[in-house]
Amino acid sequence: MEQDQAPSEKPGHPPAQATLHEVRTAENSAAHLLPTLQTMKESNPHLTLLDVGAGSGTISVSFAKLIPDGHVTGVDLNPNILPRARAVAERDGVKNIEFQQGSVYKLPFADETFDVTFCHQVLIHIGTPWDALREMLRVTKRGGIVAAREGDYETECVWPELPELRKFHKLMAGLMSAGGGTPTAGRQLLSWALKAGVERSQITLSYSTSSYSTPSDRNICSQGLCDQLRGGSRLREKALKFGLGAEDDFEEMAKAWEEWAKRDDASLAMLHGEILVQK
Amino acid sequence: MEQDQAPSEKPGHPPAQATLHEVRTAENSAAHLLPTLQTMKESNPHLTLLDVGAGSGTISVSFAKLIPDGHVTGVDLNPNILPRARAVAERDGVKNIEFQQGSVYKLPFADETFDVTFCHQVLIHIGTPWDALREMLRVTKRGGIVAAREGDYETECVWPELPELRKFHKLMAGLMSAGGGTPTAGRQLLSWALKAGVERSQITLSYSTSSYSTPSDRNICSQGLCDQLRGGSRLREKALKFGLGAEDDFEEMAKAWEEWAKRDDASLAMLHGEILVQK
Repeated sequence: MEQDQAPSEKPGHPPAQATLHEVRTAENSAAHLLPTLQTMKESNPHLTLLDVGAGSGTISVSFAKLIPDGHVTGVDLNPNILPRARAVAERDGVKNIEFQQGSVYKLPFADETFDVTFCHQVLIHIGTPWDALREMLRVTKRGGIVAAREGDYETECVWPELPELRKFHKLMAGLMSAGGGTPTAGRQLLSWALKAGVERSQITLSYSTSSYSTPSDRNICSQGLCDQLRGGSRLREKALKFGLGAEDDFEEMAKAWEEWAKRDDASLAMLHGEILVQK
Repeated sequence: MEQDQAPSEKPGHPPAQATLHEVRTAENSAAHLLPTLQTMKESNPHLTLLDVGAGSGTISVSFAKLIPDGHVTGVDLNPNILPRARAVAERDGVKNIEFQQGSVYKLPFADETFDVTFCHQVLIHIGTPWDALREMLRVTKRGGIVAAREGDYETECVWPELPELRKFHKLMAGLMSAGGGTPTAGRQLLSWALKAGVERSQITLSYSTSSYSTPSDRNICSQGLCDQLRGGSRLREKALKFGLGAEDDFEEMAKAWEEWAKRDDASLAMLHGEILVQK
């Protein structure tokens, strides 16, 4: 995601919350785009793709593997995350990729540069997502595709319903709103594309899910959230600043996530909105 | 669904709310089961499948098409829906199918009768869903599969957020609870299977979505809901009985659904929980 990236302590190493972000790939986070990408690749193997708000770069790198004769550019607002993204590409031996700093509101590219422009969990965090979509459309070639996938945080459902996990949900929604974001992004994505000036007939809307329920998934999820709650990210600092939590709350919530991870009946799921816009 | 079926005015014709139910197929409502069903069919083309709470039978009929050398049995608690289910099978020229009356709590079959036992939007409506799952397991052969898909109504997200649509959501959740059902069924499905005596290692949990957003989907959805709100189903009668709505409310909600259907930015989506249980 474009925001919420704490400066990494060691350049090239993931920040605390990256445990969770780095399970993201094109396959699990851009599945709605992949059939179209495959069709486009068949007529032009040299596709160029822009991943906006690339973060740790795991989605960008998996896109680069899918278009080995094409080229991927990842941008993120936070320059401190770029070394980590480059390290992920190097680890995976991916060469057809580059990362640079940039804002989704003012992308550092000429009009009609990319065949495909994508973002994931970016619009949910920003104040005027339709402006971001308009900017993404600007840098996309005619006949190209703008694709986005954004969570609908209000649909998040957790079982068992431990009281501290409810508190955590409210904290995260509160932080998102306090930062200018939109917890109901998923359901609003279509309306934002229309507001960016696109016709309804150019847009394909779909919905998908993300979830954690196997023992290993529960551990990844719990550890990622506990790392954030116990420090290592700006979550605590921001929660205190906005009056959304007290010091004692964070440890209680972390313990609840640890309890959740141990339970066989536990799961966490959320709905995501997805659009493909034909320019 | 097993409950909420009003007697059909004309036998073999769909009741009002069936407009919505009859878009259901194995492909859109049992996708999590289909790869396993295909594998099972390859080693045994003569599979037997039980669809519990078959309703209008559209899911059962599409299962029967997928296992042409197998056989499908659909049961529903409401005998008045069975002529419609048989009419759907006849319309589609499907012969390897039969429908009969039966309760999910006391299925009219011997132990270990079916290779696959399935239900969709049944457990969400009943008081002790783990008993229903135990009964589904009983009639399933060793080595067979019990599969279920249940909505999580609390995750339903509608855009635009018209006040009357919020009221409608509350009404439906209230009716479900008043009738002994569980609006958060999707997230609880795994816990119900464990309560039915199954080990976690036998269960595969996944989540999927249903949604309406294209103009034709919006019309189907709006018409189905307006039919229910304006009569032709037991919704009004039950809402009045449980004190969940007044006569004036129903028409206002119906008008809101009509307005919703006309809007280009409109969508409706919901998360569903899905399990496969290996017996």
